[in-house]
Amino acid sequence: MESTLMVLDKVNTPQDLKKLSIEEMNILADEIRSLIVKKVNTTGGHLGPNLGIVEATIALHYVFNAPKDKLVFDVSHQCYPHKILTGRKEGFTDPAKYLKYTGYTAPEESEYDLFKIGHTSTSVSLAAGLAKARDLRGGDENVIALIGDGSLSGGEAFEGLDNAAVLNSNIIVVINDNDMSIAENQGGLYANLKLLRDTNGQAECNFFKSLGFDYYYVEEGNNVSALVEAFNNVKDINHPVVVHIHTLKGKGLPAAENDKESFHWIVPGALDNKPAALGNNPESYESITTDYILDKYAKDNRIIAISPATPGVSGFTKEFREKLGKNYVDTGIAEQHAVAFASGLAKNGAKPILAIMSSFVQRAYDQLSQDLALNNNPAVILVYWGGITGADATHLTKYDIPLIANIPNLVYLAPVNKEEYLSMLDWAITQDEHSVVIRVPAAGVISSGIEDKTDYSVLNKYKVVEQGSKVAILGLGNFFNLGEKVKILLKKNLGISATLINPRFITGIDEELMDSLKDNHSLVVTLEDGVLEGGFGEKIASYFGGTGMKVLNFGAKKEFSDRVPLEELYVKYHLTPDLIFEDINKCLD
Amino acid sequence: MESTLMVLDKVNTPQDLKKLSIEEMNILADEIRSLIVKKVNTTGGHLGPNLGIVEATIALHYVFNAPKDKLVFDVSHQCYPHKILTGRKEGFTDPAKYLKYTGYTAPEESEYDLFKIGHTSTSVSLAAGLAKARDLRGGDENVIALIGDGSLSGGEAFEGLDNAAVLNSNIIVVINDNDMSIAENQGGLYANLKLLRDTNGQAECNFFKSLGFDYYYVEEGNNVSALVEAFNNVKDINHPVVVHIHTLKGKGLPAAENDKESFHWIVPGALDNKPAALGNNPESYESITTDYILDKYAKDNRIIAISPATPGVSGFTKEFREKLGKNYVDTGIAEQHAVAFASGLAKNGAKPILAIMSSFVQRAYDQLSQDLALNNNPAVILVYWGGITGADATHLTKYDIPLIANIPNLVYLAPVNKEEYLSMLDWAITQDEHSVVIRVPAAGVISSGIEDKTDYSVLNKYKVVEQGSKVAILGLGNFFNLGEKVKILLKKNLGISATLINPRFITGIDEELMDSLKDNHSLVVTLEDGVLEGGFGEKIASYFGGTGMKVLNFGAKKEFSDRVPLEELYVKYHLTPDLIFEDINKCLD
Repeated sequence: MESTLMVLDKVNTPQDLKKLSIEEMNILADEIRSLIVKKVNTTGGHLGPNLGIVEATIALHYVFNAPKDKLVFDVSHQCYPHKILTGRKEGFTDPAKYLKYTGYTAPEESEYDLFKIGHTSTSVSLAAGLAKARDLRGGDENVIALIGDGSLSGGEAFEGLDNAAVLNSNIIVVINDNDMSIAENQGGLYANLKLLRDTNGQAECNFFKSLGFDYYYVEEGNNVSALVEAFNNVKDINHPVVVHIHTLKGKGLPAAENDKESFHWIVPGALDNKPAALGNNPESYESITTDYILDKYAKDNRIIAISPATPGVSGFTKEFREKLGKNYVDTGIAEQHAVAFASGLAKNGAKPILAIMSSFVQRAYDQLSQDLALNNNPAVILVYWGGITGADATHLTKYDIPLIANIPNLVYLAPVNKEEYLSMLDWAITQDEHSVVIRVPAAGVISSGIEDKTDYSVLNKYKVVEQGSKVAILGLGNFFNLGEKVKILLKKNLGISATLINPRFITGIDEELMDSLKDNHSLVVTLEDGVLEGGFGEKIASYFGGTGMKVLNFGAKKEFSDRVPLEELYVKYHLTPDLIFEDINKCLD
Repeated sequence: MESTLMVLDKVNTPQDLKKLSIEEMNILADEIRSLIVKKVNTTGGHLGPNLGIVEATIALHYVFNAPKDKLVFDVSHQCYPHKILTGRKEGFTDPAKYLKYTGYTAPEESEYDLFKIGHTSTSVSLAAGLAKARDLRGGDENVIALIGDGSLSGGEAFEGLDNAAVLNSNIIVVINDNDMSIAENQGGLYANLKLLRDTNGQAECNFFKSLGFDYYYVEEGNNVSALVEAFNNVKDINHPVVVHIHTLKGKGLPAAENDKESFHWIVPGALDNKPAALGNNPESYESITTDYILDKYAKDNRIIAISPATPGVSGFTKEFREKLGKNYVDTGIAEQHAVAFASGLAKNGAKPILAIMSSFVQRAYDQLSQDLALNNNPAVILVYWGGITGADATHLTKYDIPLIANIPNLVYLAPVNKEEYLSMLDWAITQDEHSVVIRVPAAGVISSGIEDKTDYSVLNKYKVVEQGSKVAILGLGNFFNLGEKVKILLKKNLGISATLINPRFITGIDEELMDSLKDNHSLVVTLEDGVLEGGFGEKIASYFGGTGMKVLNFGAKKEFSDRVPLEELYVKYHLTPDLIFEDINKCLD
């Protein structure tokens, strides 16, 4: 394959790029695109955003002088062409090195990457900091933020633009407008972007100008020549400027150009075997949820489902969204708004169900606390994918328990099977006294086959699944099964019939039950699929702190693990049945 | 006094208002203004924002039909006229009832108040929820959000506007433009607001129109007649509209009109005795900080101080700001940007010091985690006023420890005296490996008189202040003194010489020291001036959970306490020396 890389073979750094002709850069764009398609189809990853930004990345590195000039990629899931051009092409040409580099910018990989970034809407603020530091120092480098139209819906992006606009010095914000977020864009801003595209940037009513930016428009955002011209125009500019470029998401891959949402991010093999790779999964907590919502909606027009621009996270398919019609709202990437919006909906009698990924719920802490919990409005929030994973450090999903469980008033529930989950959902949307958050199980569906008739309005009542003695195991949510396995080992190896408890409530302690354990237990073990610090287990340890009861907490360590395989993390954190058993055994000595 | 209330005597509900003439409403405005000045000068509270919004509040209640029509006050520190007009005037006419009502909207007080609100920039999102719920139900009420120009700088406001603009139904956003935040406005948006004011709303380049809003401008925002006309124009409108009204902050009180920042919020008696009430305090941690920053800045141009529009919180006076010049940045109410901006500054070699109130640091959780901690950029964040208070439920300051201490990489420090604080500051701005947060002591200045030469680069090293046995007391930050008092009681009543420890590091455990306690201690006591859940003490309890060591954690309960006197809270939470001693004594039995 390498033999076909006529141009890329000559390009190892951005400096090499500067020797190329426009024609060679066009060939280079095709070469990069082919590499990305092949690599992403092998490993999975962000496809559409990278295909759309190839020419702009080439033009940026051709015109500007990184790393002296500083380039910040918003959310950085469009940084593959940048990685290829900045010394890391082996990660795309050599299948053995496909996994060597992260899918995001990473300063530890390259001096061309300034920040580790995977959450949206942060680039302009980060760039504003770089620019201000330059000004204090008296430096003259260009500072460039590259941000997609979808990311503009996040409040931090607005805050950044509002502040960058008054820097009175060089800051170049490149708006990569491919007219798509992950799904379709939502929000009033997007009509203005369309107006600007339709008028070749000439419309007087211009969001960016209203904030005080100088403004350039490039209709041909996938044309290297046009981009080079535009970037040359703003290079070394002495005031804040927006360069609005109109790009094509998925460019060069017809399937991705036509179905931008499905090809935003793909699983391995998606291009070879689209239907199997993209859908037709067996029953999942996602499908259980969407079936449930559709069923309730059919009977009750007050039901409304909300996603902050990540419908894929919760299995909110196009079909699902169309069926709900006006009772589905995509807020754009705007988690703060989404939570406050849900609070307002609940206050006025609707039944909002907001679906949000664990890694992103932390973007709305203040809103969970102030807009929602303080007001006790009965909105329902579903937290998806909560748990320890081998993910990139930017997308860890183990912090939602400390985040949510320490906010007053909120009821945070951890179901362990399908029946419990459905029963909790039913209670949550029926009651009107509490804001309820449910941690949707992150593993395969488990069904007890028995309807759960628990009255969840009796808060903080744990369920004793098996009554035993000596050791009590509290297996929270995803880790209830781990508790079952530990119980078996205790019986087998030590003859101990441990008590097995399903806490169900993350936000409070069943004091009556805990007190009753003192009679014939000497050790309480907590298992939680999340970070230990600030989490569930520590509360149990504190509760028993003044008694003679021993407590062992199991969960993840507070750290930004970065693409560490899950099995390895489980060993490190002592989260396998054997390792837990060993720790218990030592403690019982 | 009541005898002079010619018009207000007739107004007990908004319905009574509808019978008045414009002339009577003008008299009413004067009456309300006098009441507010007298009441706020007695109790302290928000002055300028309320004086500026009197006419608009009258006009809103005259034109619209609350509580059917729904009115949401952003941040709600301008809701006093609303409270006077909606059945709560006794809270302003009767000094005995001055403290009966909160300074914010409160649904438990009145059906005219929809949300408990005290944080900024939330109104449009909440109103969008109300409006969408109305649309699903087929209702026809008007939904109105009243938001100040200062609050527009917060990202949640943008997210709300962006979403409200596409509701395709009635939502009326009243922009209360008094050309001020708490301090001067900062950000590109404000030039557009000025352009709109200067052109009587006619400028083509219009931020609100760029988001898709219909738009009305009212130059005379303190003229009841003009406001009534404008609100009548938009009443029952079938699409999203902005009514931009130009008001005068502090209206009617010359001192407040002239010095808008000082009279935004005042202490009791400020109007009688301005210099004493407003300044000339003895040494405080605020003045220690500003002196420190100015001193460092004189030697190092990389030092830059940042405030998210709340310079008063950190004692960043006008004089201080002027001295720093370009090395001071007010970001507007934009905590998310402020944190990311600080990260960018640090990345590019500057030395940012961001000052933020405990209650507001939670508005930037994701940025603390992703933009800052994940990147380990050496920015310094000072958290002010952290601790348990008798404040309004919307402004509690006890959650910063769970929020910050459970984020990886961050180093969160709790100094107990001036020397330690200065030493920590020195270390924080000198080193370049960690993002450092310091919890500025929230009580009066304590000085040891001895320079602190600790090397804080050795993380999580606690300081043993007095070595003893049997009981070890960990007194964190503000509560170190409480630990000293408990130690005395233990000695006096039980003859126990307790070990007294100043942990200094909130974010980690000194495992070596903790392990050493096992030799001759049977109880560890933790004291923290914050909420227990997710906090410091629970980590200690968890650490010792598998051992025989008993641990008692003292701190606040997870709840939204609302204007409960601090002494009462201390008794409730067992935070007096006597109550702590009693609990220890029981535990030692």
